[in-house]
Amino acid sequence: MRSLLLLSLLGLTAAAPEKPRTPSDIVASAPESAWQAIPADDLLVIDLKKGGRVVIQLAPEFAPVHVANIRALAKAHWWDKASIYRVQDNYVVQWGKNESTDPLPAGVVAKPPAEYERQLEPVAVHPLGYPDAYAPEAGYAMGWPIGYDRKSGTANLVHCYGYVGVGRDMAPDTGTGGELYAVIGHAPRHLDRNIAVVGRVISGMENMASLPRGTEALGFYKERTSDVPLASAQLASDMPAAGRPSFQQMNTNSPAFADYVRARANRKDDFFIRPAGGVDLCNAPVPIRPAPAG
Amino acid sequence: MRSLLLLSLLGLTAAAPEKPRTPSDIVASAPESAWQAIPADDLLVIDLKKGGRVVIQLAPEFAPVHVANIRALAKAHWWDKASIYRVQDNYVVQWGKNESTDPLPAGVVAKPPAEYERQLEPVAVHPLGYPDAYAPEAGYAMGWPIGYDRKSGTANLVHCYGYVGVGRDMAPDTGTGGELYAVIGHAPRHLDRNIAVVGRVISGMENMASLPRGTEALGFYKERTSDVPLASAQLASDMPAAGRPSFQQMNTNSPAFADYVRARANRKDDFFIRPAGGVDLCNAPVPIRPAPAG
Repeated sequence: MRSLLLLSLLGLTAAAPEKPRTPSDIVASAPESAWQAIPADDLLVIDLKKGGRVVIQLAPEFAPVHVANIRALAKAHWWDKASIYRVQDNYVVQWGKNESTDPLPAGVVAKPPAEYERQLEPVAVHPLGYPDAYAPEAGYAMGWPIGYDRKSGTANLVHCYGYVGVGRDMAPDTGTGGELYAVIGHAPRHLDRNIAVVGRVISGMENMASLPRGTEALGFYKERTSDVPLASAQLASDMPAAGRPSFQQMNTNSPAFADYVRARANRKDDFFIRPAGGVDLCNAPVPIRPAPAG
Repeated sequence: MRSLLLLSLLGLTAAAPEKPRTPSDIVASAPESAWQAIPADDLLVIDLKKGGRVVIQLAPEFAPVHVANIRALAKAHWWDKASIYRVQDNYVVQWGKNESTDPLPAGVVAKPPAEYERQLEPVAVHPLGYPDAYAPEAGYAMGWPIGYDRKSGTANLVHCYGYVGVGRDMAPDTGTGGELYAVIGHAPRHLDRNIAVVGRVISGMENMASLPRGTEALGFYKERTSDVPLASAQLASDMPAAGRPSFQQMNTNSPAFADYVRARANRKDDFFIRPAGGVDLCNAPVPIRPAPAG
C-alpha cells in the first residue's frame, strides 16, 4: 500500500483530457521535429570494471579545445586504466590518471585556453524567465542550460546535477581534460565561469552518484584499493554502429521545450497544491531520450 | 600528485593575513556566541542495520504537529522494523513502514494539519540578499533556510539537499510522519509549500545518498530483499546522556553568519577567478558542528 506515496510527483498519473499537461506529458507527446540527434562523437562512453555504463554528452559548442582533448584522450585509450578516486557527498565524483607518470598522448593540448564562457551572439537563446542568483539572466541555448550577460555579450555553461567539468589546479591552469568530475549534489553554481564545463551525464548517472563516499578531506578515498577502476572510456563514434548508444535531445528553441519549462514552473497535477510559479535552471533539465529504434 | 586538484575548492588553503577570509575560515573563527545548542529532543537518530548512523534535526518551529508525531513514533519504536524502500537518483531516499498493517501508536495524530508554511511574524529574518526562483524573498530564520512573502506574511522551510519531508498521498492528506524522505539531489524546490518539511540530515547523509538506486519507477526497489532495514530510530533525548550525539548550529542572526553568507556569494580564495556575486539558498547551508566536548 505504501508504494502509492508520492507516486504522482513525476506526473505519472494517467492523462485525461481535462487535466493540465504535466512536464512528462509534454515530453512524451512532443513532435519528432522537437528532437535532435546527438552526434556520436559527442558521446563519451565510460564502462566501469565492476559493471555499469556512464554516457557523457560533450559540449564542443562551449569548450572546443577541452572537448578535442577529451576526444584525443579517448582515442588513445588514456582512461582505460584510470580510476574514480574521489567521491565527495553533495559535490563531485572525480576520475583520472596520474599525468606526471603517464604522459599525455600526441594531439592533446597541454595548456588549453580558459573556455569558461563564450560569445552570446549569434546563438538563439530561450530565456528561462525566472530569476537566477548566479547570472544576470538564465536560459537555454543549443540544447544546454546557460547563464548569460547581454551587457558583456557572454554565455556560460552551468554546473547542474550530472554536469561534467575539468579538474584543474590553481589558475591560470585550466586542466587538460585528463581529470574530469561529475556533479552529484546540489548544483555548485559558484564553479560556473571558474572551470571548463565540458558536458553532462545523460545515462548511468546512478553508477557514479551511488558510489561510496571517500573518507578523506574533499572525499578522496583513503586507500587506493577503494578506487573504482574504469574498464574503458571511448567515443560512441569509435564503437561498432550496431551496438553503440544513441540519444536525442529536445531542441531548446522548439515550442514543446517552451511548454515543458512553463509546466515545470507551474506543476498542476493532482499532487501539487501550490505551483511554484517559478523554476531554477537545474530543475528544468533539457529532455534527453534514447534514439528511437529504426 | 593528482590529489592537489580542486584541493582549495572548500577553502582549505592555509589562512594568511592578507588573504580574503573563506567561508570555512569564518565558520572556524566564529565566536562561541554565534553558536546555539540543538535540543536533544530535536534530534532523530537513525541507525541502519548494516551499520551507519543518520542524525536528523527536527524543525518544530515549522511543523509542530508532524514533529510531535515523529517524536511519538520514535518513542514507540515505530521505525525499528522499518526499511528504506525507495532511492531515486537526483531526488529522494524514502523510508517507513506499512501503516495499514502496523497501526499507528497512541498519541500520533492521524491527519495533521497542512504545516506547509507558518506566519512570518514575529520571526527575525536574515535576508539572503540574492534572487530566488521559488519565493518572493529567500533568507534564514531560527537557524533554517526559508522562502517568505511579506505580502501574505508567510514563511516556509525549503527543500535543500539533505532536507527531510513527510511522504503523503494526494491532498488534503498531509502524511503522518511515519513515512519520511530525504533529498539526495538538486534541491526540488517545487515541493516547497506542497509537503511538510520537518527537518534536515545533519550527520551521516552519505549513508543515505550512496545507497543503490531502485530500478522501478520512481526509484522503488524491485525486490523486498533490496530494502535497507533500519535497526532503530530514536530521539537523542531518549539515549544515555553520555554517548548521545550532540550538535550546535550557527545563529542565523549572528554577524558571523552574515559574513559567512557574504563569503559564500563572493568566493575569493586562490582557486576562484570570478566570484559569482550571488548564491542560492541551498548553497549557503547553515553551519552545524558537533558540540565541543566539555
